[in-house]
Amino acid sequence: MRGAVMYAPGDVRVEDRSEPRIVEPTDAILRLSATCICGSDLWPWRGADALDGPVPMGHEYAGIVEEVGSEVTTIEPGQFVIGSFFASDNTCEICRAGYHSSCVHREGVGAEGAQAERLRVPLADGTLVATPDVPGDELLPSLLAASDVLGTGWFGAVAAEAAPGKTVAVVGDGAVGLLGVLAAKQLGAERIIAMSRHAPRQQLAREYGATDIVQDRGDDGVAAIKELTNGLGAHSVIEAVGTQESMLQAIRATRPGGHVGFVGVAHGVALPGEELFFSHVHLHGGPAPVRRFLPELIGLIWNRQIDPGKVFDLQLPLEQAAAGYEAMDRREAIKVLLQP
Amino acid sequence: MRGAVMYAPGDVRVEDRSEPRIVEPTDAILRLSATCICGSDLWPWRGADALDGPVPMGHEYAGIVEEVGSEVTTIEPGQFVIGSFFASDNTCEICRAGYHSSCVHREGVGAEGAQAERLRVPLADGTLVATPDVPGDELLPSLLAASDVLGTGWFGAVAAEAAPGKTVAVVGDGAVGLLGVLAAKQLGAERIIAMSRHAPRQQLAREYGATDIVQDRGDDGVAAIKELTNGLGAHSVIEAVGTQESMLQAIRATRPGGHVGFVGVAHGVALPGEELFFSHVHLHGGPAPVRRFLPELIGLIWNRQIDPGKVFDLQLPLEQAAAGYEAMDRREAIKVLLQP
Repeated sequence: MRGAVMYAPGDVRVEDRSEPRIVEPTDAILRLSATCICGSDLWPWRGADALDGPVPMGHEYAGIVEEVGSEVTTIEPGQFVIGSFFASDNTCEICRAGYHSSCVHREGVGAEGAQAERLRVPLADGTLVATPDVPGDELLPSLLAASDVLGTGWFGAVAAEAAPGKTVAVVGDGAVGLLGVLAAKQLGAERIIAMSRHAPRQQLAREYGATDIVQDRGDDGVAAIKELTNGLGAHSVIEAVGTQESMLQAIRATRPGGHVGFVGVAHGVALPGEELFFSHVHLHGGPAPVRRFLPELIGLIWNRQIDPGKVFDLQLPLEQAAAGYEAMDRREAIKVLLQP
Repeated sequence: MRGAVMYAPGDVRVEDRSEPRIVEPTDAILRLSATCICGSDLWPWRGADALDGPVPMGHEYAGIVEEVGSEVTTIEPGQFVIGSFFASDNTCEICRAGYHSSCVHREGVGAEGAQAERLRVPLADGTLVATPDVPGDELLPSLLAASDVLGTGWFGAVAAEAAPGKTVAVVGDGAVGLLGVLAAKQLGAERIIAMSRHAPRQQLAREYGATDIVQDRGDDGVAAIKELTNGLGAHSVIEAVGTQESMLQAIRATRPGGHVGFVGVAHGVALPGEELFFSHVHLHGGPAPVRRFLPELIGLIWNRQIDPGKVFDLQLPLEQAAAGYEAMDRREAIKVLLQP
């Protein structure tokens, strides 16, 4: 089969790879209907994450089950399924508490590389969620978004305790930040402030429910949020970048007693304890337990209540994956869908 | 009047100071029935916090109202009252959300120095809570504890979401940690693990409700907590020290999805963002909004349901304040009550 492999920063190649096979009796093999490039894939592309030799890329996927292992009981060939970047058993105490991405049996799906024609998914029963039927092509982008960026933005909004009556600010205008806006809207937030300086992203943020746009960053961005919130700061702030600056911006833009939901994968962040102590914020985040939200999110998409697929503003054949990385790196595309 | 003043690390003197007077019409003047030395007073005593010249010490107080300003309406002379280290208006949006120690009008009470015979308390209506009657001497230690250490341990337990069915671990066996144990018990925790290597403190922890004692610290301490919790970590961890080691110990001893309540005043702490991200814990803490809890805590003490005053294992006349600092510094006393 064909699959994308990163050889070095800026060097992604689509090449022949061995077909995935059932390894454990709990595995499933999917023929992917759609896959995509993640903001976090740009870290190694930019040289910010070390690469250990050529690495198969991709961890977002949706597709048709082709084969299941002998112990798989709820997932069967022919179903259209969506899973997350971490496989989970969905039965351990941590999963039952809703933290599937810290499942005691969790396995990364990314190691196999989902930017490919087929994918082996471990712990199929606990990881995959089937749609009511095989969807038409028009639903593919939104269903694929549920695999990671929608679930991650949703977790950011849940961790930030977005709710009716609250003002929610979103730091980061990538796909996760934009879908954090969508999630805050769905969770009933009264006011949603998107921080963005890119017109097309501001436009999508407004479509998703943003009531205000703040173009400033850093201290100026914090001052702008405070000005919009009676000097107090937002009740809830979703952090969807992962840098020191964005984390501090999120903490400082949150009122005492408010909540920061941080879902940008942290890179080189060191939080000053004294400032955190006196900030009085709640801090929660990490790798989104997407599996917790998948049934609800699939339902919302299936019933056309949300349209998260709009974040895919560029679709390319899998063979052109490298062009997709370039477009995202140059911020010419918010997120690139790859057609296997 | 007489009051304690710190001149330099290790140099506390009780000397004549000017009588406090009403400055703002919202002030009250108290004749203190009891005051005490805080673990945080040991930071400058040990030279870990810088001192700007001689500083009046103390921020914990309980006593009789002697005089009130012209705008004070709910507090009156003759009442026995307790307040917290931050004065608060109890009416702003932040106070109404329960974060009185970040009140938009907050004022530190510590600057005036509560290790003294009398004290000016700003924002008397919003800050002070009166007891049902003037208490007998036997209740003084517990009522004084409510002014800070009990309220702080309580906030730690609330921030850590101690609740029925949960395992709560407590990092730190000072007065705040011990009262965190008491709070966790009152909040219904099923299992309470106190981390302590001091026999008298272990004993008091058990009296307050600890079901297990862990003597190990650092990585070994984390391993011991995991061994007691099925390898997962505690649901809730109260951090009552404020160092880098204790914060990491608290975060690492908490299961994914669990809650860290940190109330040790942070000193030189820098939290690694990546570790925090993948830990999946909730982090909340800061200066305790004691005022939020005062009415409830006074009720529990008044009805003899809790006895937080036991943390005062040494009582000295105010004149011997320096000996009290020494006893706490050498860990010969958990907490020292001073009799003005």
